[in-house]
Amino acid sequence: MDRIVPVILAGGTGSRLWPVSRSYYPKQFHKLLGPHSFLQATLLRAAQVSPVAPILVCNEEHRFLVAEQCRAVDVAWDQLILEPEGRNSAPAIALAAWHAVAENPDAVLLVMPSDHLISDEAAFTEAVREAAEGACEGGLVTFGVTPECAETGYGYIQVADPDKGLQAVAQFVEKPNEELAEKYLAAGNYMWNSGMFVLGAQTYLDELALHNEAMARTTREAMANASRDMDFLRPGKSFLDSPADSIDYAVMERTRRAQVVPVNFGWNDIGSWAAIWDQSSRDEQGNHLLGDVVAVDTSNSYINAGHRLIGTIGVDNMVVVETTDAVLVADQSRVQDVKEIVRQLAVGERSEHLYHSEVFRPWGSYEGIAEGNRYQVKCIKVNPGASLSLQLHHHRSEHWIVVKGAARVTREDEVFTLGENESTYIPRGSKHRLENPGRLPLELIEVQVGPYLGEDDIERFEDVYGR
Amino acid sequence: MDRIVPVILAGGTGSRLWPVSRSYYPKQFHKLLGPHSFLQATLLRAAQVSPVAPILVCNEEHRFLVAEQCRAVDVAWDQLILEPEGRNSAPAIALAAWHAVAENPDAVLLVMPSDHLISDEAAFTEAVREAAEGACEGGLVTFGVTPECAETGYGYIQVADPDKGLQAVAQFVEKPNEELAEKYLAAGNYMWNSGMFVLGAQTYLDELALHNEAMARTTREAMANASRDMDFLRPGKSFLDSPADSIDYAVMERTRRAQVVPVNFGWNDIGSWAAIWDQSSRDEQGNHLLGDVVAVDTSNSYINAGHRLIGTIGVDNMVVVETTDAVLVADQSRVQDVKEIVRQLAVGERSEHLYHSEVFRPWGSYEGIAEGNRYQVKCIKVNPGASLSLQLHHHRSEHWIVVKGAARVTREDEVFTLGENESTYIPRGSKHRLENPGRLPLELIEVQVGPYLGEDDIERFEDVYGR
Repeated sequence: MDRIVPVILAGGTGSRLWPVSRSYYPKQFHKLLGPHSFLQATLLRAAQVSPVAPILVCNEEHRFLVAEQCRAVDVAWDQLILEPEGRNSAPAIALAAWHAVAENPDAVLLVMPSDHLISDEAAFTEAVREAAEGACEGGLVTFGVTPECAETGYGYIQVADPDKGLQAVAQFVEKPNEELAEKYLAAGNYMWNSGMFVLGAQTYLDELALHNEAMARTTREAMANASRDMDFLRPGKSFLDSPADSIDYAVMERTRRAQVVPVNFGWNDIGSWAAIWDQSSRDEQGNHLLGDVVAVDTSNSYINAGHRLIGTIGVDNMVVVETTDAVLVADQSRVQDVKEIVRQLAVGERSEHLYHSEVFRPWGSYEGIAEGNRYQVKCIKVNPGASLSLQLHHHRSEHWIVVKGAARVTREDEVFTLGENESTYIPRGSKHRLENPGRLPLELIEVQVGPYLGEDDIERFEDVYGR
Repeated sequence: MDRIVPVILAGGTGSRLWPVSRSYYPKQFHKLLGPHSFLQATLLRAAQVSPVAPILVCNEEHRFLVAEQCRAVDVAWDQLILEPEGRNSAPAIALAAWHAVAENPDAVLLVMPSDHLISDEAAFTEAVREAAEGACEGGLVTFGVTPECAETGYGYIQVADPDKGLQAVAQFVEKPNEELAEKYLAAGNYMWNSGMFVLGAQTYLDELALHNEAMARTTREAMANASRDMDFLRPGKSFLDSPADSIDYAVMERTRRAQVVPVNFGWNDIGSWAAIWDQSSRDEQGNHLLGDVVAVDTSNSYINAGHRLIGTIGVDNMVVVETTDAVLVADQSRVQDVKEIVRQLAVGERSEHLYHSEVFRPWGSYEGIAEGNRYQVKCIKVNPGASLSLQLHHHRSEHWIVVKGAARVTREDEVFTLGENESTYIPRGSKHRLENPGRLPLELIEVQVGPYLGEDDIERFEDVYGR
């Protein structure tokens, strides 16, 4: 298995898990089931299958999140490829493939989305082994999941014999309507298309060149001109010229090399809050209650109180999810439509589908805790050893009160240290920098005062994170 | 009508309207329907009926709230009687009656709870006029509301002829079960007991002496020993020795003077969120949406987003009420059980049934906006001209940043002024005072740091509010 290079696609916005999942901190980075995020669970699963360090592909704006989550589970992230914009799965896999063949022409890629769940890891490992044999023989191998219900949300793969292992794909079929889905389920030889693949890197690139020459060429040029920026690999600009398409449409449905391993390893794409409820432990009333919940006569419901008390009465078959700035109340049968709320927020040019109140930065995080006319209050957390950029603001002054740890403050020509219960003032227009020189997290309260308080009122002079 | 003295009972905790209604800021003070609170609407209704200034009875801890709400609608509050503890309605009315007869032995009391709604004010005025005639002849007159449904939550009054006006009460009957309620509704001569009364003050006291001598005596002594504290009347200590009972049990069901005016003036005791929904304007889907709500396929629901975004999907016949620290999700048919949540909070020795995040004080308000280990952050608002007490804290230091208006700060021997975007520091153990000397509201951010941050770490030296 040491030719197998895990490729983890960490894009995606997970809009159906709003309000927990948002564009700048989506589903794959959240710990909704157990101690690891979906990305971390995927990284650990990959490590069980192959000793080779993974290649990760993610959006530019998630780079520090991915790096931090890799670090936390002790997985190397020096092969983290940043997409300036998403172009769907086929180009993302192509970037990884070009990178892999440059290292090892015989590399076999195990392509995994970062936001799926697999409950039977042993069966998964065995299935990957079987798929890898096909890939070594020139197959582009997908996994076909034995369907549990007449799901209309997935594409299907028709196979000749569901009880046989590795075999040629008979046919890919689109997401069906309910009637068709029932037929597929009854027929027994239609499998869910899981979106995971085992592919010879060179075979994939050859087939891509055959079926989508522009995609193969632009991604090759992009990786040939890739630059290294700290821990990150930035593809060249030609990536933006790549057509956008899924691997299914761009390659799998066209190639004659498509193979499938029918599997039954407890796959779930966690496509909705109902799936989260389904995968969670439940009490005698069928509830999963998380956080501070007082539930009276409540049943078959998922209640997630992130920050505040939730009281429920006479609630059945519902999802209630509470975050600092938004609350979702939905019938379990309608949770797919959470994306409709997200759509409406986007149309309204709002921000609750993009950002959380707590915004993560490479140096730590900040959270808005109050705002008023001409002022706002933030709680700023700086990791030990971390440093914000040397910066100034044209429209606001800042008051800093250290409430935990120690801060080193640069203010124009002065450099001084503040301990707990000490404060300072950064006048409008002063060059300043905040650092945590200590071994403990630094926490401070910042009160900003001025006529304009947008994040974009910042002039950066030096930044250790290359921003 | 100038013998009529309105008596407004402003006690009550309104626990079925949690989380908006809480012990220290209950239902009657909230503006849930229209521009006035239920108390203010009651004050204005009283003013329509009688030119005489009202007597108010409220709990000690609500005195500044009542005074402020009276001030806002230009009603005098110099006859505000403070109960150190509630003893139910009969003793409260007795306090008002003793106070009234001392001024005018012929006073006729119009007793109204402060948290009911009356939609037909003209019919109300006419009914009071009719009731007052009975009261002047020595009757203790109640209003019997023509029932709209087989309600089990109210007591009933049996009358001889529902189409006649003022008449003797045939019988008071307890809250019925559903079967009985249906019978009462069908019979047509059973009225809802509204809890409003028109009584000769002296007649009431005479009947009380007859049927509950201890209550009459202790309340008389309490008012004889009442002291005036600023705008407030504090009954003497003997009030605490009064038996607790409702006017119905203590007097109305025992007296031979009970009379009733059958009425139909759109009375509603706003006993639940379903009643609020019922009294609110509704859109085509039958929803009343308040605040920041994105409702997808939502119907027949009351959604109140006090501070945050609420998204709903596939929700029917529900109540969702959001406040800074708690969210209620309840089926409309189960809203009576909100009090069960409140009960569980009380059993758990929590505070969300007692206080809101924003706590009102005679000088303004404060609201906790963040808390952590050894620190908390508050937003403090001080009314123009108002002043906090001269105080010190043994366990915490305070950082103050003025974000709006101007502050006069006393710190030990210094007195100085802070403007917008200026800050100061109050070290642990320093005597200090905060005042708003200006004409505009003062707003400041306070960061408290210390090992103990409870409100009870306060030593007061001088207080203009006599606390």
